[in-house]
Amino acid sequence: MKVEFWFEFASTYSYPAAMRIEALAANRGVQVVWRPFLLGPIFQQQGWNDSPFNIYEAKGRYMWRDMERICESQNLPLRRPSKFPRNGLLAARIVCAHSEEPWVPEFVRSVYRANFANDAEISSPEIVEQCLTQAGQDAATLLTTAQTQTAKEKLKAQTTEAMERGIFGAPSFTVGRELFWGNDRLEDALAWALR
Amino acid sequence: MKVEFWFEFASTYSYPAAMRIEALAANRGVQVVWRPFLLGPIFQQQGWNDSPFNIYEAKGRYMWRDMERICESQNLPLRRPSKFPRNGLLAARIVCAHSEEPWVPEFVRSVYRANFANDAEISSPEIVEQCLTQAGQDAATLLTTAQTQTAKEKLKAQTTEAMERGIFGAPSFTVGRELFWGNDRLEDALAWALR
Repeated sequence: MKVEFWFEFASTYSYPAAMRIEALAANRGVQVVWRPFLLGPIFQQQGWNDSPFNIYEAKGRYMWRDMERICESQNLPLRRPSKFPRNGLLAARIVCAHSEEPWVPEFVRSVYRANFANDAEISSPEIVEQCLTQAGQDAATLLTTAQTQTAKEKLKAQTTEAMERGIFGAPSFTVGRELFWGNDRLEDALAWALR
Repeated sequence: MKVEFWFEFASTYSYPAAMRIEALAANRGVQVVWRPFLLGPIFQQQGWNDSPFNIYEAKGRYMWRDMERICESQNLPLRRPSKFPRNGLLAARIVCAHSEEPWVPEFVRSVYRANFANDAEISSPEIVEQCLTQAGQDAATLLTTAQTQTAKEKLKAQTTEAMERGIFGAPSFTVGRELFWGNDRLEDALAWALR
């Protein structure tokens, strides 16, 4: 019984999902597979060269207010990033190359906190380094591995797989072939894993 | 304490919301204001001349599967309409002209059932007549009123108001200036009304 958690570090609604999925899944005895991917290529296929929250103004305004309510209810700090969306490529490559290692969930949360609670530039190696250190890792080695061709191609392949699985936004959750989209579907996805 | 329920008869996710809102609100002692509007002009402003579920294929595929799961969990019949989206203009004008009358909720549900459970053409006066009769009303009179200039302008004004309130999709719920979007935010909107 496992849930695959498809997330993008730039994605606002992925933040509350990333912060609660591990505890929620553990409570129910469900395993989480951490699956970072890039929304950029998926949005481009839909004809967007920016976040739909920037392109569609009313939708964007609503999303930020909705995020405030969600973060308040989950007791999560939220500071609206001065830049949105931020490029999470480097962090995503690191997770993708090491996704089954036990420090990954803490690193993922640390990157989300940097982006959405601390307004830090998560595309910069310095910030990613801090996040790796917070997760107890040797940052220098991991940053080097992240730049290898293998790491790059692994993330590319994972993004292609996301598309092939019908994923069009983040966060998404898959249980076998069953797809759930959005932070507010996390409980449904976990319940599906237990059927 | 009241919740304004903004819905569009063509909108899939408005169907499960319309079927449960009255009972849910009554349980909590919240009043429902029924506010039909048209998504067409709002989508046009965003550059769409069709439902985004038709324009964005992966999103559409997901939505229909998601609707199956939701309707199953609410014990609602669902037959995917052979035409989507259907034009709910006539039904919306009728509701708009009589929104505070006690038969309106039953009429609304009857139109949604026609569209999403019976695959009936809700733009046709015959089907709307059947729905009015099911709600215990004199269909002939109401169909005539719906064609008056007043009824037309009332629905236009309500659609403009929806836009001005930042509404970009259906169903939406407002409590004062607070906006909630989506069937899965209904409980949050009701809780907000009780704050």
